[in-house]
Amino acid sequence: MSEPPFKKLKTEDYVLYYWPGIPGRGEYVRLVFEYAGVEYTEQSDPASLLPTITDPTKASHPPAFAPPALKLPSGRFISQTGAILNHLAPKFGLAGEKDGEDAEEQRSVVNSLVLTALDLGTEAHDVHHPVAVEKYYHDQKDAALQRAESFRKFRIPKFLKYFQSVLTSNPDTGDDGSYLVGEKTTTADLTLFQVLSGISYAFPKRLATLRASGDYANVFKLKDRVESEKGIKEYITSGKRLSFNENGIFRHYPELDADE
Amino acid sequence: MSEPPFKKLKTEDYVLYYWPGIPGRGEYVRLVFEYAGVEYTEQSDPASLLPTITDPTKASHPPAFAPPALKLPSGRFISQTGAILNHLAPKFGLAGEKDGEDAEEQRSVVNSLVLTALDLGTEAHDVHHPVAVEKYYHDQKDAALQRAESFRKFRIPKFLKYFQSVLTSNPDTGDDGSYLVGEKTTTADLTLFQVLSGISYAFPKRLATLRASGDYANVFKLKDRVESEKGIKEYITSGKRLSFNENGIFRHYPELDADE
Repeated sequence: MSEPPFKKLKTEDYVLYYWPGIPGRGEYVRLVFEYAGVEYTEQSDPASLLPTITDPTKASHPPAFAPPALKLPSGRFISQTGAILNHLAPKFGLAGEKDGEDAEEQRSVVNSLVLTALDLGTEAHDVHHPVAVEKYYHDQKDAALQRAESFRKFRIPKFLKYFQSVLTSNPDTGDDGSYLVGEKTTTADLTLFQVLSGISYAFPKRLATLRASGDYANVFKLKDRVESEKGIKEYITSGKRLSFNENGIFRHYPELDADE
Repeated sequence: MSEPPFKKLKTEDYVLYYWPGIPGRGEYVRLVFEYAGVEYTEQSDPASLLPTITDPTKASHPPAFAPPALKLPSGRFISQTGAILNHLAPKFGLAGEKDGEDAEEQRSVVNSLVLTALDLGTEAHDVHHPVAVEKYYHDQKDAALQRAESFRKFRIPKFLKYFQSVLTSNPDTGDDGSYLVGEKTTTADLTLFQVLSGISYAFPKRLATLRASGDYANVFKLKDRVESEKGIKEYITSGKRLSFNENGIFRHYPELDADE
């Protein structure tokens, strides 16, 4: 009996609780482990997922509002994507640590960039669910078409312009310009990579136009760099990485996409 | 020349950069300072606000995506409400510190609750701007009416039920049940207080029904407790606290409110 290549269940392991079959918000957490080369296992049985993480007698206090939740080696659970990433970042050397800088301040600016990238991901979700998260997309399609136009024309460029300015003004990376903070990969780079991957899947025409404009060259350079980095490249080529699909945050509905 | 009672500009002071005239997301940060009794000043001149915080040559790297941004005593700026609160929490004793608990884990669960409360605040905003943040409310009123119904019927109760379960399952507070984590006030309590205040302003009929139901007794107990706590009570009665209005996150449009 051979063991799976990356996963080995130990009591001290990290365990990610997330929905099966979609990258979703769980993917932000997976990328951190894959990049850092830290073992983790997953629990995604839909029958036990919510009862486990939302019941404080089964998990720990406080219960989670929603997946993802991460069980720590101590046995405690932490939920909310941004909180999970901020918890792991300094443990895995992904919090922008740099000689001569206050580590807590570096960590907090990395956290701010993670939260901003997550906001862009949330807005991408809200495009296909503008009026009621509990209803189907096809029941709110008219509002979705309006929101998609706003998202393509104003919101995506606003966020990309921001991240372009962060990348080009980073004093630590010289000519490279593909690191958001300091001179190595942080959770902010990984999160932005995932959001860019997601909106490239959901809005391929719009992202192609924006890439071709050259106005966000450093943003796309970051995306390409992270994709080929050690840990991430192996993760993608292994086939482990779940594909985007129309059950997740980032959905490709052709009628919502356009060049502009 | 008498000085203002709470504010005294010193180079080591914290400076909050936020829009003038609205509580908005700046209020989450203000409450932390007011509760902790730490001095801070504000810069809200609309002509210089965005140029200062979004220009890395004037602020620090990385620039902010949007207000609020907080200038730290070191001179560095941190933006994103959740990141600011998580940065300040352990410095001000608001991160759930407790003997026998891992301080980083306590801080992270407080952070997760802050982020969840902020999500509820963001959803309250999205009710009046469901299809395009750059357009006026009256240009998206039909979608707003639909989203308001979903928010009142499903989303508010879902969040309140969650926080009620967090409060009633907290093992540290015994019969009190008005503290989200541990046995004293954290940034999570302060943030939830502000969100509850905001949705009580925006949806007074709906919140009255929910309070009267008794199903969320601990949630409303938290709101009442924080309102009368030292620091917060003085802040409210001083007249310093900005009133909610129809330019902010939480807006009272009577047509969006109902008992159910």
